Amino acid sequence: MGEFTLPISISFGHCDPAAIVFYPNYFRWFDRCFHTFLAERAGGHKAICAELGAKGIGLIDVKANFPSPAVEGDEMSLVLSIEKWSDKTLTLGYEGKVGDRVVVSGSEIRGLFIQKDGRMRAGEMAPLRALLDPAS
Amino acid sequence: MGEFTLPISISFGHCDPAAIVFYPNYFRWFDRCFHTFLAERAGGHKAICAELGAKGIGLIDVKANFPSPAVEGDEMSLVLSIEKWSDKTLTLGYEGKVGDRVVVSGSEIRGLFIQKDGRMRAGEMAPLRALLDPAS
Amino acid sequence: MGEFTLPISISFGHCDPAAIVFYPNYFRWFDRCFHTFLAERAGGHKAICAELGAKGIGLIDVKANFPSPAVEGDEMSLVLSIEKWSDKTLTLGYEGKVGDRVVVSGSEIRGLFIQKDGRMRAGEMAPLRALLDPAS
Amino acid sequence: MGEFTLPISISFGHCDPAAIVFYPNYFRWFDRCFHTFLAERAGGHKAICAELGAKGIGLIDVKANFPSPAVEGDEMSLVLSIEKWSDKTLTLGYEGKVGDRVVVSGSEIRGLFIQKDGRMRAGEMAPLRALLDPAS
Repeated sequence: MGEFTLPISISFGHCDPAAIVFYPNYFRWFDRCFHTFLAERAGGHKAICAELGAKGIGLIDVKANFPSPAVEGDEMSLVLSIEKWSDKTLTLGYEGKVGDRVVVSGSEIRGLFIQKDGRMRAGEMAPLRALLDPAS
Repeated sequence: MGEFTLPISISFGHCDPAAIVFYPNYFRWFDRCFHTFLAERAGGHKAICAELGAKGIGLIDVKANFPSPAVEGDEMSLVLSIEKWSDKTLTLGYEGKVGDRVVVSGSEIRGLFIQKDGRMRAGEMAPLRALLDPAS
Repeated sequence: MGEFTLPISISFGHCDPAAIVFYPNYFRWFDRCFHTFLAERAGGHKAICAELGAKGIGLIDVKANFPSPAVEGDEMSLVLSIEKWSDKTLTLGYEGKVGDRVVVSGSEIRGLFIQKDGRMRAGEMAPLRALLDPAS
Repeated sequence: MGEFTLPISISFGHCDPAAIVFYPNYFRWFDRCFHTFLAERAGGHKAICAELGAKGIGLIDVKANFPSPAVEGDEMSLVLSIEKWSDKTLTLGYEGKVGDRVVVSGSEIRGLFIQKDGRMRAGEMAPLRALLDPAS
């Protein structure tokens, strides 16, 4: 069950000399999809960090696989799903499809970074969950 | 009179530590705007190059100025205009606005690169003009 | 035992509004490290593909984690290691350090993409291994 | 007379499906060259801004032309020159060469952005000039 879909039109400049998407771009789109989701749900990263006293909702771990290449002119739908809330982490799933064809599938684990007593610490997820996923 | 408008949602990852758009991104958007315009008008860069026997519609010269910063959450409208057809070059204008505020204004000069007798040459613009701008 | 080290000077433009490296950049550096390794060992991606009749040494799967943030001014050493040769895949490990501090640790699984009978197929790794890692 | 040279190894991922450098990358390199120059001369952008009470040394205007393409494997030398100090702007010249061949030539006009009375203003260049170019 996807939470949010970001449409991406694959352009010439997203592709490399093999004429397929240069892979780091997929992670730019993962990140953009997450931030757009934050904007739609709770006013965006900046407002959420201000409310929760956090420095950022930062990345701890990420992975992806690429079952099929995407090329210039492809219209990709990138779907974000909330996979799991843990005490101090949130796991997000991503699937990008061109029509019925999966071109990227991956996940991010993110934490809430809070500056406290001069050190950066991992914050509790509960207040972020209440903002983003209140029905869960 | 703009020919084509590309909407851009400014995201966290487009911005630098000063929290404004990292300027090379504007040129990625200029290029994407041009390629999307090609797709809408005449089937895209690849199809046009195949039809005209060209290797690319490449950049010769570019410039931009930045009257006002754009930040995370801004919705920018990037408008492409055909400014001038010369014998062997096409000049494109770009203006990006957030609401009524201009955040970027610039132009690109592009040529048609054609491989001939083992050398790259600048091709005539007339056939490209017939495809992209037939009423002009 | 690392095979190749790429030095990266973290610059202002690599960082996001949280003033730490925008994470997709780490994957641009993984990819650049791999291609630079190919150039040092066997003449580069293009020459290797020509010799092996391949379209590319493309990515199948990638992952990374980020134990500590990197910021503007940091000098990162990115070390590539060959982790495993399988029949049709190569696994590469990456570790990026700023001094003794690990800022990124990850891996890529790559395959040899070969066009045959109108389809893209995964090629055997043996000839690539002979070029890149003859002593193994 | 160049002030600073940044070597750039053109990699696969810097290039587009036409197998030449995707042009926005040149501006990432202009910006990186400038920031590296700041680091070498006066401790970097962050330290300079702290000393001068500025928010950034930001871009006002930029232009470039591309006399010849650069491709994967090219070693480019990017030379920054201080072209002109005005009261409230600094003009920087850039020239990128692969061997004797010029692949990019351009310039940036930058200003010192200072927050004052709730507004962003252009600061005087004299204190920046004293830090970066004391002999001029």
